[in-house]
Amino acid sequence: MAKKYVYFFGAGKADGNGKMKDLLGGKGAGLAEMSRSGVPVPPGFTVTTDTCRYYYSHGRRVPPELQAQFKDAMRKLEKVSGKGFGDPENPLLVSVRSGAKFSMPGMMDTILNLGSNDAVVEGLSALTGNPRFVWDSYRRFIQMFGNVVMGIDKSEFERAISAKKREKNVELDTQLDAADLRDLVARFKKLYREKTKEDFPQDPWKQLVLARDAVFKSWNNDRAISYRRMNRIPDDLGTAVNVQTMVFGNMGDTSATGVGFTRNPMNGAKEFFAEYLTNAQGEDVVAGTRTPKHIPQMAKELPECYAQLKSITSRLEKHYRDVQDFEFTVERNHLYMLQTRTGKRTGMAAVKIAVDMVREKLISKDEALLRVEPDQLSQLLAPVFDESQKKNATQVAKGINAGPGAASGRVAFTAEKAVELAKSGPVVLVRPETNPDDIEGMNAAVGILTAIGGRTSHAAVVARGMGKPCVVGCQALKIDPGTATMAVDGHRLKEGESISIDGFTGEVYVGRIPTIPSEIVRVLRGELSHKDSELYGVFKEFMGWADAARKLKVRANADIPRDAKAARQLGAEGIGLCRTEHMFFAEERLPLMQQMILSDNVVDRKKALDKLMPFQKEDFKGLFKEMRGFPVTIRTLDPPLHEFLPKTEAEAEALSKKIGIPAQTILAKSRDLHEFNPMLGHRGCRLGIVYPEITEMQVQAIIGAACELAREKIRIVPEIMIPLVGHKNELKHQKDLAIRTADETMKSYGVKINYLVGTMIEVPRAAVTADQIAREADFFSFGTNDLTQMGFGFSRDDAGKFIPAYLAEKILKEDPFQTLDQEGIGKLVEWGTSQGRKVKKDLKVGICGEHGGDPASVKFCHNVGLNYVSCSPYRIPVARLAAAQAVLESKKKSEYSSK
Amino acid sequence: MAKKYVYFFGAGKADGNGKMKDLLGGKGAGLAEMSRSGVPVPPGFTVTTDTCRYYYSHGRRVPPELQAQFKDAMRKLEKVSGKGFGDPENPLLVSVRSGAKFSMPGMMDTILNLGSNDAVVEGLSALTGNPRFVWDSYRRFIQMFGNVVMGIDKSEFERAISAKKREKNVELDTQLDAADLRDLVARFKKLYREKTKEDFPQDPWKQLVLARDAVFKSWNNDRAISYRRMNRIPDDLGTAVNVQTMVFGNMGDTSATGVGFTRNPMNGAKEFFAEYLTNAQGEDVVAGTRTPKHIPQMAKELPECYAQLKSITSRLEKHYRDVQDFEFTVERNHLYMLQTRTGKRTGMAAVKIAVDMVREKLISKDEALLRVEPDQLSQLLAPVFDESQKKNATQVAKGINAGPGAASGRVAFTAEKAVELAKSGPVVLVRPETNPDDIEGMNAAVGILTAIGGRTSHAAVVARGMGKPCVVGCQALKIDPGTATMAVDGHRLKEGESISIDGFTGEVYVGRIPTIPSEIVRVLRGELSHKDSELYGVFKEFMGWADAARKLKVRANADIPRDAKAARQLGAEGIGLCRTEHMFFAEERLPLMQQMILSDNVVDRKKALDKLMPFQKEDFKGLFKEMRGFPVTIRTLDPPLHEFLPKTEAEAEALSKKIGIPAQTILAKSRDLHEFNPMLGHRGCRLGIVYPEITEMQVQAIIGAACELAREKIRIVPEIMIPLVGHKNELKHQKDLAIRTADETMKSYGVKINYLVGTMIEVPRAAVTADQIAREADFFSFGTNDLTQMGFGFSRDDAGKFIPAYLAEKILKEDPFQTLDQEGIGKLVEWGTSQGRKVKKDLKVGICGEHGGDPASVKFCHNVGLNYVSCSPYRIPVARLAAAQAVLESKKKSEYSSK
Repeated sequence: MAKKYVYFFGAGKADGNGKMKDLLGGKGAGLAEMSRSGVPVPPGFTVTTDTCRYYYSHGRRVPPELQAQFKDAMRKLEKVSGKGFGDPENPLLVSVRSGAKFSMPGMMDTILNLGSNDAVVEGLSALTGNPRFVWDSYRRFIQMFGNVVMGIDKSEFERAISAKKREKNVELDTQLDAADLRDLVARFKKLYREKTKEDFPQDPWKQLVLARDAVFKSWNNDRAISYRRMNRIPDDLGTAVNVQTMVFGNMGDTSATGVGFTRNPMNGAKEFFAEYLTNAQGEDVVAGTRTPKHIPQMAKELPECYAQLKSITSRLEKHYRDVQDFEFTVERNHLYMLQTRTGKRTGMAAVKIAVDMVREKLISKDEALLRVEPDQLSQLLAPVFDESQKKNATQVAKGINAGPGAASGRVAFTAEKAVELAKSGPVVLVRPETNPDDIEGMNAAVGILTAIGGRTSHAAVVARGMGKPCVVGCQALKIDPGTATMAVDGHRLKEGESISIDGFTGEVYVGRIPTIPSEIVRVLRGELSHKDSELYGVFKEFMGWADAARKLKVRANADIPRDAKAARQLGAEGIGLCRTEHMFFAEERLPLMQQMILSDNVVDRKKALDKLMPFQKEDFKGLFKEMRGFPVTIRTLDPPLHEFLPKTEAEAEALSKKIGIPAQTILAKSRDLHEFNPMLGHRGCRLGIVYPEITEMQVQAIIGAACELAREKIRIVPEIMIPLVGHKNELKHQKDLAIRTADETMKSYGVKINYLVGTMIEVPRAAVTADQIAREADFFSFGTNDLTQMGFGFSRDDAGKFIPAYLAEKILKEDPFQTLDQEGIGKLVEWGTSQGRKVKKDLKVGICGEHGGDPASVKFCHNVGLNYVSCSPYRIPVARLAAAQAVLESKKKSEYSSK
Repeated sequence: MAKKYVYFFGAGKADGNGKMKDLLGGKGAGLAEMSRSGVPVPPGFTVTTDTCRYYYSHGRRVPPELQAQFKDAMRKLEKVSGKGFGDPENPLLVSVRSGAKFSMPGMMDTILNLGSNDAVVEGLSALTGNPRFVWDSYRRFIQMFGNVVMGIDKSEFERAISAKKREKNVELDTQLDAADLRDLVARFKKLYREKTKEDFPQDPWKQLVLARDAVFKSWNNDRAISYRRMNRIPDDLGTAVNVQTMVFGNMGDTSATGVGFTRNPMNGAKEFFAEYLTNAQGEDVVAGTRTPKHIPQMAKELPECYAQLKSITSRLEKHYRDVQDFEFTVERNHLYMLQTRTGKRTGMAAVKIAVDMVREKLISKDEALLRVEPDQLSQLLAPVFDESQKKNATQVAKGINAGPGAASGRVAFTAEKAVELAKSGPVVLVRPETNPDDIEGMNAAVGILTAIGGRTSHAAVVARGMGKPCVVGCQALKIDPGTATMAVDGHRLKEGESISIDGFTGEVYVGRIPTIPSEIVRVLRGELSHKDSELYGVFKEFMGWADAARKLKVRANADIPRDAKAARQLGAEGIGLCRTEHMFFAEERLPLMQQMILSDNVVDRKKALDKLMPFQKEDFKGLFKEMRGFPVTIRTLDPPLHEFLPKTEAEAEALSKKIGIPAQTILAKSRDLHEFNPMLGHRGCRLGIVYPEITEMQVQAIIGAACELAREKIRIVPEIMIPLVGHKNELKHQKDLAIRTADETMKSYGVKINYLVGTMIEVPRAAVTADQIAREADFFSFGTNDLTQMGFGFSRDDAGKFIPAYLAEKILKEDPFQTLDQEGIGKLVEWGTSQGRKVKKDLKVGICGEHGGDPASVKFCHNVGLNYVSCSPYRIPVARLAAAQAVLESKKKSEYSSK
């Protein structure tokens, strides 16, 4: 018997099956499997990869046996479809696609509508009653065929279309009518003749053979070769060719087309969720030119097809064990499934579906945990717009979505104004960019919008920390601080006017759109009973599975009791980073801080610090109470001191009045403290070394707070963390000082408490010399924000000038401030951890900073053996899930490798 | 026979010898050896370390046999010295010192003048005719004995002296006369009685035994124990006790005291170089209260002692095989050598002496090379003040000595003014700090003085590169740019007034001090025939030995032909770093550069670049010609673009007139390019990636220059170096671009040349991922300046705020910008090199930047296997010698370890 080169599929049967990827390619095997399992896919056949290999080993000729098998398959296709290839009365049109074992975007594009010719077009026009559609399909076919098979430059066809539109004085392709398209077809054919010195082939068979061989040729085009090289795909696999019937949903009222999901992708409800249109093309449903009908209607209009569709899709869901997103077409009462794939869904739906499917025993808990993208969980926590009210507002710009959730309120252009306006209603703080001065304003605002900066700018980081919606880098905003106005997209807004921002999408609206708080947050806050929230029940169950699975602890970055409380509600197991400097910006404290900085001797500095101490101590007591029973890591003062001083004459005058130091002295100090590269300047432990009295005061406050609580029988183990250590002697200096101060403080209270002194590893040199530093450290916490800045030499505040170009040029796959660069910065983390543990076997190692809430980075932290991650409170569920997935994924990997 | 516990030395003999360090301690063995070899040291004896071990193993008792041996030794000492212990007529006074096998600064202080008592003092006063000296010696003895032996706090004695001075209303100890000191002795004795409940012992024997046992006790005092722990010295070695005769040069006209060198320490001439005073103490010679006599005078005054001294010192030089710095005393016609040690010398003298000693066959060439501190060589190249003319100027301040050499000229406060004033005579450029704009002014000036910055500030680096004297960080300067004046130490200077700076010492003078150019530089420049310079001959021979010994190549950092020429003259074997940006600041080029930056589209940018290209090409041709036959590494554009733009309105207006772009546009662009941390901003290869046309232009110029020279039969292999690479894809992007451009350029010339494309490793991530980067690189060059900045997280421009504190607190041993931090940043260099060579076995690896001229860093580079170092031209001899020493030192080490 001759070798079999052609495999047929269709009408519930198939020559091949899903396992034959080597021979039929991925697509061919998939179509065979679907057809075999009773899914009505448009029938067709696959020419094997063997054929392709033969083609190349025989001087680019197909096997002689192919011709007959190929013809037989076409005949069978005509029979099964009930149509004739090239028959104007009832034409069979086909698509031709390549299909290798591995998906290869570098290969040939699809050719649709093959089989069209002048006669077929006329027949089909009559058949569908839609000549515009038919002529459009024809001109598309000539265009694809001309380009893909004959190598005519795409732009040649585009130019012809443009010319036609100019003549007709229209802007859009859709504005061309049937006659125009018919004319265009004529022009395309002329172009084809000019370029190929041949007429466009009217013989469908010729079209088909040329297209088939073009697929084989495409296996060795430059794009495909370089794609294989990059992806290490062997060059000798060859590709298959898939020829499949075209079906049409616009062949009258017994035809239809639609899309749908097997469950509701918005909320996860178990309901058949689809839309369709009769006598329509797929595009019509998606494009919104006609309003689609809801699926129950189909039960009346096309009852048989409806029943079949419902039964098929629910079978598909069971088969793939996940929600399916499907496309279907009914051609004259015949249902065809065009596509089925895993359905995308919102965070809420993802959790609901995962939990439901476990209850339905469709999937295991482990699988459920792997079904939800950790990032999606943050959607469950963020407030949302009341979609029904959106009509009252106008979208005017789109920035970078930096903090999930929706916010709406009056515009304030300064932090002070935000505080003031917030007294009489919600405020959105709008700034060119934010800095630590703005903290109180950000605190008062319901949302933050900036013109400059990326997802890790100050505004974004602080906003996410606060769980506030935030849009940054919205360059369309022209803010004029002088007149306190802003121009955007032709609108001019004054302070106090309404604006709305969507931190999920980055959209900015002029006008007020009411928001709805997240259901889960309302339950967590006690504003809603958990009994009234099914979603909360689902969420809680799901997170419980995650917690049972994970090994990594999850802590929060939190500076104030309110954030600490939220963090606990969201599942934090301690505080991994308390930034003490945020405590110094409050109204009654800042002048004291400023006085301290302006002192030119240690006695005056100590005086000011002595006044600050009680405030700090109270702050810590508040934090410790919220975190009772959990560890709290407190970082000593980190930012350069100039951040606390006024920069302008007016600000200096104002401060001068408050503290009685001449404005000129204040400004002179501010200038004196100015730095060329503050990121690499006098900050972190360098402050505590030059001004040991600052560290002293902070340690007094930390230990004092713990001692006072110990008297109330509240026990807490504070972890004092020294920032920006690069040399073991820096840590030793600060540690010795901390221990001395702690001992004195405990003595003065007559109380003994346990405490640790450790360090951040955020300077590359610290990671490199981690073995030395570990000798002085009770714990390490990787500050990967700064480690990324210094390791890459990227200033987070300036990298916006080149990171977009780097992503566009694929120099970087991802923004390293968003997700940890595992092969570079991650190596420093890995090295630092292993070197540290060489010296101290049980050294506690964590990570704080933005990456602690990034799922990929959390998984990395699990894999390199960290003890915990710490992230902003609203990222905690994300981190908990990612930590669980890390365990499950490495379990899967080790099962795989043990096979 | 009883065990021998006491070893005598003196009168040309000794019981012990130099090898008995275990038993006699280092000092005791040395004294025995000197005495034995005929050097007249004051006689004395050593109590063995055995005695100390016995003392501790027998409940703090000395061996019973010791007593008799001890007494015998004292008797012998009296005999040899012809004096009596406690004899008022002719008293023997002794010193008592500890002396372990290893030098231990943690142990007991010396006790001098032991044997003094009330009677002895009276006798000695008569004998010396100098009662003030005698009473002063006595009160010092009581003080030392009271403190060291009896443990009375030093401050008690100091308080008594202060009280006495207050009573006498004088400020200095020297203002107290004999009677005052006599009174002070009485007070000290009273104090002694109060504190010890005993009288001060008048019995010399009692004094001696107590002092001896105090030495044994000191072996286990806290300081000594902790010193041993830190230096890993075993605790059971014990210490010896040295008792030695005191001698006095102030016993009349047959007594004298002096100091000297066996060769001239200023210029190395082989001449007896000493000064002395008759009837004087050692302090009198050093203190300058009396003018010492030149040594030839001694031949007349004390002919026998002179002859003896000359013969002894020349023997000592031969014995130690190095120049000796000696102290001697003649006591009543008896010569005693008090000390001899290796003599410190200037750079010139060091080289001359080393070469002479090889010629004299005293030392080998290898030894000669190890005898000169590499840093000293820079003294041979720098101009110096004409010391005789210093009286015309007043020292007003002291800054940081940042560029060796002396300079004198008129003050200019701006680069423009410097250029202008330089037309009519030498100029010193005085700036708060310098930046790339100032290049032309620095070029025009003979010296540079700044108020801000450290040894690696822009001013210092550029000045050293230019071989110009430079003083930086001179904070006493109050520069007022508005009025173009400067206040310093009460002087007010206007622009054009004279100033002088000493880059060796950091001293700043108001007024003019003529300078003398370095002799060697004059020969190298051809201004002086090498036949007329003995020093040059010596220098050349010495450097020839260094070159023969070293393995590391030495290249220069040079941007212009003049520097390249100097570099070649100083022995450079290529250019390791040509900073192309320095070429853009010249008058006719800067506006083109600015036009390029101000263009908002690639077409305009290319237009401006096309005009810059010929300039760059000519620059490269000039460099290549000077470096014919050697490699030239050219770095593509590195600094952030805002450095090229005006910052003030006035500058913008001026530029606007030149290039016709509105001043507001210029300022807006300047603001737009402003960066928070320019060090970590849009610079290095990030420029070439966002603006590939810049790299393109530079590669065209480099390859074009090489092609044009190739036509003239001048062959050169340019090495194109991509800066600030942190990710392999950055290098790949720029390398692909460079290769494409180079191919096109060569094609257009019809010439084929060899060239390399490599990268700087200066971003920590690059060192961490060096294996990946090596795949794309033809060579690596470590940019340790930036690697130190990013590795430590220290901004070079801002670190002045904390590095001084770090050095003071010993957190850092050395400024990491001056000498490479081997245990941190060096680890990155080592790691990067070995990872790179794992991928490419023969990868060429070098270092450019300041550390390339630092001897310790050069040695490190040799040890980790680098191929070359590159440094500023005037550091090249330093690097050549350091590279040679690295070889010799590792040879020595391996010889040692193989023994």
